[in-house]
Amino acid sequence: MGQTTLDTFFNPASIAVVGASPTPGKGGNALIRNIKQGFPGPIYPVNPNHREVENLRCFPTVSHIDNPVDLAILFIPAPRVPEVLRDCSAHGVRSVIIESGGFAETGDSGRALQNECRSIGQETGIRIWGPNCMGLVDGRRNLALSFLSPEIWGDTLTPGDVSLIVQSGMVSAGFLVDLMSHGVMGVSKVCSIGNKMDVDECELLDYLIGDPETAAIALYLEGITQGRTLLDTARHSPKPIVVLKGGTSPQGARAAMSHTASLAGDDRIVRGALTQAGIVPANGFKQMMDIARALAMVPEGIGDGRIAVLTFTGAAGILSADCLFCHGMDLADLTPDSRRRLEKLFPSWMPVANPIDLWPAVEIVGAAEAYRQAVETVMDDPGVDVLLLHAFAGGSRFSLDLDRLAILSRSKKKPIFFYLLGRQDEAMDFQRQAQRLGMPVYREISRAVEAIHAVYVYGRKKQ
Amino acid sequence: MGQTTLDTFFNPASIAVVGASPTPGKGGNALIRNIKQGFPGPIYPVNPNHREVENLRCFPTVSHIDNPVDLAILFIPAPRVPEVLRDCSAHGVRSVIIESGGFAETGDSGRALQNECRSIGQETGIRIWGPNCMGLVDGRRNLALSFLSPEIWGDTLTPGDVSLIVQSGMVSAGFLVDLMSHGVMGVSKVCSIGNKMDVDECELLDYLIGDPETAAIALYLEGITQGRTLLDTARHSPKPIVVLKGGTSPQGARAAMSHTASLAGDDRIVRGALTQAGIVPANGFKQMMDIARALAMVPEGIGDGRIAVLTFTGAAGILSADCLFCHGMDLADLTPDSRRRLEKLFPSWMPVANPIDLWPAVEIVGAAEAYRQAVETVMDDPGVDVLLLHAFAGGSRFSLDLDRLAILSRSKKKPIFFYLLGRQDEAMDFQRQAQRLGMPVYREISRAVEAIHAVYVYGRKKQ
Repeated sequence: MGQTTLDTFFNPASIAVVGASPTPGKGGNALIRNIKQGFPGPIYPVNPNHREVENLRCFPTVSHIDNPVDLAILFIPAPRVPEVLRDCSAHGVRSVIIESGGFAETGDSGRALQNECRSIGQETGIRIWGPNCMGLVDGRRNLALSFLSPEIWGDTLTPGDVSLIVQSGMVSAGFLVDLMSHGVMGVSKVCSIGNKMDVDECELLDYLIGDPETAAIALYLEGITQGRTLLDTARHSPKPIVVLKGGTSPQGARAAMSHTASLAGDDRIVRGALTQAGIVPANGFKQMMDIARALAMVPEGIGDGRIAVLTFTGAAGILSADCLFCHGMDLADLTPDSRRRLEKLFPSWMPVANPIDLWPAVEIVGAAEAYRQAVETVMDDPGVDVLLLHAFAGGSRFSLDLDRLAILSRSKKKPIFFYLLGRQDEAMDFQRQAQRLGMPVYREISRAVEAIHAVYVYGRKKQ
Repeated sequence: MGQTTLDTFFNPASIAVVGASPTPGKGGNALIRNIKQGFPGPIYPVNPNHREVENLRCFPTVSHIDNPVDLAILFIPAPRVPEVLRDCSAHGVRSVIIESGGFAETGDSGRALQNECRSIGQETGIRIWGPNCMGLVDGRRNLALSFLSPEIWGDTLTPGDVSLIVQSGMVSAGFLVDLMSHGVMGVSKVCSIGNKMDVDECELLDYLIGDPETAAIALYLEGITQGRTLLDTARHSPKPIVVLKGGTSPQGARAAMSHTASLAGDDRIVRGALTQAGIVPANGFKQMMDIARALAMVPEGIGDGRIAVLTFTGAAGILSADCLFCHGMDLADLTPDSRRRLEKLFPSWMPVANPIDLWPAVEIVGAAEAYRQAVETVMDDPGVDVLLLHAFAGGSRFSLDLDRLAILSRSKKKPIFFYLLGRQDEAMDFQRQAQRLGMPVYREISRAVEAIHAVYVYGRKKQ
């Protein structure tokens, strides 16, 4: 039943917005405009003070709507929520997202209100998402069930393979805008769960594990209420799961208490348990997404993790080796055959070693040829499991045939990760194109290595 | 004398380029075009095979030039370098940058050639920069004495306060293009020192410490040849110095040997000695620059390091607290007076705590007013030394008066650091504007905290 019920949140046939507003700048206005942008079904604004909102007929209450409503989104003062829930129930609404704040996070009276709403949900069978949240954002459906202004979203929404469950409005709003407008990645389903009075991370995790549009799942959590269920679900998940836990410090934990009324728990114990269940831990918002997109693109792992580093600059090769060493990762020993093939590319004085610094070869045969031959050599090498390829975007000299690299990577079953430098626009194009082809791109060596390491560890656990 | 001699490299009255080429795509062509773009004095291409290069008269040798030459840049096959050095000397050239490779990094015969050149330098008094390097890039003079193609530079060169000394062409070329085209920062003087046969990091460091256009200095080094001199110079430097050391792993050290013929040394010993001399250590290219620009903007430190965090989102406040805790930094205890002032902004249920989550206040009084009052409160608080301000750029709702913030920061002598999210273009504008006003901007919480920590530690040492 859980699966079926939650499906209405993700694929509603019709949506009512209680608290809809004709006033630009108000959340109840943003909600209607956001939904209009991506939702093909009927939208019903609800507000007793208006007869029309954004050219849509506005209803005084949900029960005044002359059609069935699949999903109701509530953006009204908290004290009015119980009455609206009952009205929803009377009209046959089965799924409600409460985006308003003013519940458990505000203290005793808010907690009482939240309990009252939960009871109404249990009594009526309505599933409740929130409160104190920013709802759902769906990058594949270009749909933001969110009160964040459409002017801020702009045209940034980008489809992707990673879904998120976040105990933070920001991570499902401003942070997504930042991530997507910089071309870092797109997203599939982003669930802002707020106080999670009913629908929680465990149930959503279960849903997303079964979602064909989700390849990897990232969670930002401030408190883990049903630890055992979460760990069990993770342990049996065929999809990679990354968790960023907020409130690992005493002061952070105190802040988490007032933010989402969460008990943070002992960090070491939590982290240990998560890791044991096969969950990949993260340390920051961007890093969480950097790891999640690697796992979504390379869920099969990288075997024994023997890495070839191909660079156009000695310094970046050296720092890559240093960083891999810090993470306990092995540089591949190239076979004598590979060495012989590479020696032909290089000036005679140059010892062939991994990291392979292509610069001297680039100066002799040009970048395209040096890269082509060197990539083919390491992809043929039986001692290499994965390639960390350094690239530069901007100026024609270093342009790479990404389609060809992707085909080679797939046929040899050896993932390619990029460390990319370049001019802003060209680098963004490169990143989008490479990632569309399944090759993750990073703008810092350390971040590329962290992603490779996460994919390696995840792959070993799954074996 | 050192100072005076090196000055010709940075402020030459005339430049000869030996190995100049009329062929686009060749380094000897890029050099001429780069220099033409920013250099106001006479430029003399030298190449016996051509009579004109890029509309400039081309001379068969340096001694054919009918005017004095201050600086000669050599981009010719290594074996020809000794003869050209003698020709330079005959013509009275006192400063030569050898950008060609083919010296000590290529083995025994290259090492012999390098020694021969060094002897010629000693014998003739010519100061030699390089070989195997990309020369000098000057962001303030829009000048790249570099063989990197002008198409790659584009219009990215941006003036700034940080100077660099790097044992890597890439860091003075592609990496700079990346950094500047993304609006992260500009640079002052960037010195690619290559094999440093004569001019080395110590002498350049000394020069840059005396350079009024340099506020902080960052070094990427693969080997430290004159450790004692470097440490002595650093110990007495009135300007902050950041060092990124490549080759800290066994495989990285091996790669450093073949890259710049550098002996990497034991990492822990090196790092310990650097830190003791007041040098700030870095772990990666971007992080090095992120720390250096903070030190350039806030060289005076941040007193007792008591931090106020102002955020528009609970989650980012929590992660900031977690990250500060990891770095052993203290969140400021707000005074009762500050609490009272903040309480007026917030809903009654909300406990005032640091990190200060402004979201509930933003919902009541709007972002501009919430930010204004909260910033003034923490800047007035005697228990606060520095402010970590979270901001969003894109959409008008969160626009901040940066000029006003900068004035407040200066008058209260409390630096402001930003953690910024936002849409690409707006975020880049915000970052440029804030940093022009002396307020460093970071795009990840961890990076902001690392920078604050580095500024704090540096300030404590200088007290």
